[in-house]
Amino acid sequence: MGIDFNPDFTIARLSPLIKARKVSPLELTRWILGRIELLQPELNAFITVTSRRALRQARKAQEEIASGAYRGPLHGIPVGLKDLIHVRGVPTTAGSKILRGFVPRENATVVDRLERAGAVLVGKTNLHEFAYGPTNVNPHYGPVRNPWDRSRMSGGSSGGSAAAVVSGMALAALGTDTGGSIRIPAALCGCVGLKPTYGRVSLQGIIPLASSLDHVGPLCRCVEDAALVLEQIAGADSRDPFSHGMRGEPFSHDLHKGLRRLRIGIPRQYFFDRVDRDVKRRVLDAIALLERGGAEVREIDLHRTRMTAALAGDITRAEALLYHWRWLQTRARDYGADVRSRLEGHGTVSALRYLQAQAERLSYAQDFEAALRSVHALAMPTVPVAAPRIGDTEVRTGRSREDARLALLRMTRPADLTGQPAVSVPCGFSSDGLPCGLQLIGRTNDEKTLLRIAYAFEERTPWQGQIPPQPGA
Amino acid sequence: MGIDFNPDFTIARLSPLIKARKVSPLELTRWILGRIELLQPELNAFITVTSRRALRQARKAQEEIASGAYRGPLHGIPVGLKDLIHVRGVPTTAGSKILRGFVPRENATVVDRLERAGAVLVGKTNLHEFAYGPTNVNPHYGPVRNPWDRSRMSGGSSGGSAAAVVSGMALAALGTDTGGSIRIPAALCGCVGLKPTYGRVSLQGIIPLASSLDHVGPLCRCVEDAALVLEQIAGADSRDPFSHGMRGEPFSHDLHKGLRRLRIGIPRQYFFDRVDRDVKRRVLDAIALLERGGAEVREIDLHRTRMTAALAGDITRAEALLYHWRWLQTRARDYGADVRSRLEGHGTVSALRYLQAQAERLSYAQDFEAALRSVHALAMPTVPVAAPRIGDTEVRTGRSREDARLALLRMTRPADLTGQPAVSVPCGFSSDGLPCGLQLIGRTNDEKTLLRIAYAFEERTPWQGQIPPQPGA
Repeated sequence: MGIDFNPDFTIARLSPLIKARKVSPLELTRWILGRIELLQPELNAFITVTSRRALRQARKAQEEIASGAYRGPLHGIPVGLKDLIHVRGVPTTAGSKILRGFVPRENATVVDRLERAGAVLVGKTNLHEFAYGPTNVNPHYGPVRNPWDRSRMSGGSSGGSAAAVVSGMALAALGTDTGGSIRIPAALCGCVGLKPTYGRVSLQGIIPLASSLDHVGPLCRCVEDAALVLEQIAGADSRDPFSHGMRGEPFSHDLHKGLRRLRIGIPRQYFFDRVDRDVKRRVLDAIALLERGGAEVREIDLHRTRMTAALAGDITRAEALLYHWRWLQTRARDYGADVRSRLEGHGTVSALRYLQAQAERLSYAQDFEAALRSVHALAMPTVPVAAPRIGDTEVRTGRSREDARLALLRMTRPADLTGQPAVSVPCGFSSDGLPCGLQLIGRTNDEKTLLRIAYAFEERTPWQGQIPPQPGA
Repeated sequence: MGIDFNPDFTIARLSPLIKARKVSPLELTRWILGRIELLQPELNAFITVTSRRALRQARKAQEEIASGAYRGPLHGIPVGLKDLIHVRGVPTTAGSKILRGFVPRENATVVDRLERAGAVLVGKTNLHEFAYGPTNVNPHYGPVRNPWDRSRMSGGSSGGSAAAVVSGMALAALGTDTGGSIRIPAALCGCVGLKPTYGRVSLQGIIPLASSLDHVGPLCRCVEDAALVLEQIAGADSRDPFSHGMRGEPFSHDLHKGLRRLRIGIPRQYFFDRVDRDVKRRVLDAIALLERGGAEVREIDLHRTRMTAALAGDITRAEALLYHWRWLQTRARDYGADVRSRLEGHGTVSALRYLQAQAERLSYAQDFEAALRSVHALAMPTVPVAAPRIGDTEVRTGRSREDARLALLRMTRPADLTGQPAVSVPCGFSSDGLPCGLQLIGRTNDEKTLLRIAYAFEERTPWQGQIPPQPGA
């Protein structure tokens, strides 16, 4: 059976064929590796391609399946991993010059889990250096280019993961999200990006940006695929020093129950301010679609969100320094200019300011949780603009100009501070033909309902599964 | 039936009599208030005595019990509360000049729970100013004096709670423990002091010292009483921002199963260094008694404990400033000299140092937890010396001199950093006739086994229930 890059190129559609031995993992992996060969020079989505390892894993999957030992929906599925996730024996650069040549001796917990599920690792994806930025313009490995327009940013910091998935160089990829780094590139490149509840997926073996804000989760071609990946990676991990055994619950999806009796909240404040006209229209259309599908839509108040930028900035700076301070003493010049300037600004964060920021965060999180008692999810744009051009340092929304980095992070940071699960789902295109993202934020540990809403939306939208221009176009 | 101050003056012995209406709560409360009138001038254990409220609560308890509505073992029992625990309508000073005149409008969660259990509040106990010190030499309300020798410290910061319980001015009292503030005065005054697992008892409504290290727990006249109080106060509290719902498990005791099959660890490092000869002998005798009682005693390694003083110091300083910084701007002179000097040292703790200290703490806690996998509890002195004289700034152990404050905190700080439950149980007297404390540290959330060991020890020791010289002696 031939493999074709079309809207059905998803785990959900391919895995039954693999199980039924109509598609072979080896054939699929070869097809993906060919696709990488074709597109990687244009998109720069990978830092390391693990072809030999992928073929070996695919062959093993094929043999297992042939012998009747089918492991489940990820068995034989080619995936990418953001290149700050440790894989035993595979270089991990974190997009930095500093870690060039570093080869971990242990797998991250999520890697163990994906391997147990039979997934095939095709490569380590490009990212913003040390995940500390949302543009994915990487001075050491080059920028990741947007599959819809090569002159545009992918967004980041998990930009390689998004570009790979959108362009068919992987069926799924893991990213991390500290200020929006899964959801931002998912929105700008046009795929589904899920940031799970804080602590639900183990961070063990993942290079930290800011431990109290870091999340790991999937970027996929559709909502069902994100659910399938989350099922495999969620769950308690005694080795994870951050999950504290508190939220590491296993996950199983329940996507098909529709929208009846679900309430969706539209924040009156902040989340629709200074949003590009096209993006706003697509998101409001999406919400109208959810309403027509049976959800109850109501406006809700969510005050104090404006302070989240400063809070997240201070907490991230302080926690990032814990990991980076030694290299700042000895190898400062090996950082890219933007990351270095953010790290070197840090010496001035006092413990008092850090703890005040954490206390304000907690108080904001309580308001946020209260808002989510009256609704099952909040809906808003993922990013206020479509993908900026590579090199842009400012973006425009209407008449106002804004620092590009701050604009990209503006809508996603709140859910990193509060810990609730959040997903970005493609909801159409700007007049420039660039993807727009609908962000849905759910209740703590209730990825089930969140993904059910996202799935119901995706089912109803004509944008589902749109694919970018083919190679060379 | 007459009430007498003797070794049986415990909740465990009195509550069956109250239930059987052989002792009336009103009579007991009046007796306690008389005792306070007699001893408070000498010991200075209380900042506020709530006589009228106590008589009202006692009368209510008496009526309820007379009508057959017996609530359980704390019903009609007179208790004290460290004066940083909010009680609606009762002044809460935290031992400070700054909070003089402050009257909370809400109960702390532990107060709600004690009231629900029918306990009678007789007063708010004296403490080291804002709980920030272990001597309980309070410049605003005077020092708490040790019931065994009025020239000696009670230890702190819950010194008033310990002195009240030991001298029969309350049957139990709550204290808080950030660096040892329950266990230190329990050891120096000669009662049982229990610091529960971090997060097991709600901190809601309690003035913080350092939120990531604060614990609240009982000081009592015997182990069973501590178990009875813990049963009432333990459990999840959605209002507690610190327990995170993670460890707030309810508790029920199981004291009578003896020592068979239990293993007790003696740390080879740190915990028996620089210990006063008398204290060491009493503690080693206590361990020998446990061994004769059927426990298996083994030496274990527990490295890196020396760093805990610096870690706890930095974390406490940084977190304390979060609560105090505004007053330091406006009312610095209203602090006592020692507390002010510790707080004003703070401006220099950077977020980096704070986060490094928290990371080192986590790493030490993992070692500690590993050590507790092979044994059910660790045994050691609670404090390396018997009660110093009021005014002493140094103590001697053998030939070495040490800052009194640091010496008092030396053995107790580790379990505040690691979060495991720890109890101090009286284990005899120094040659000066001052109490010595055996400290037992148990496994996370396993107060059941910890108290079972403490109870078995107490049953076997001739010191159980020793009472201090009577008034005027």
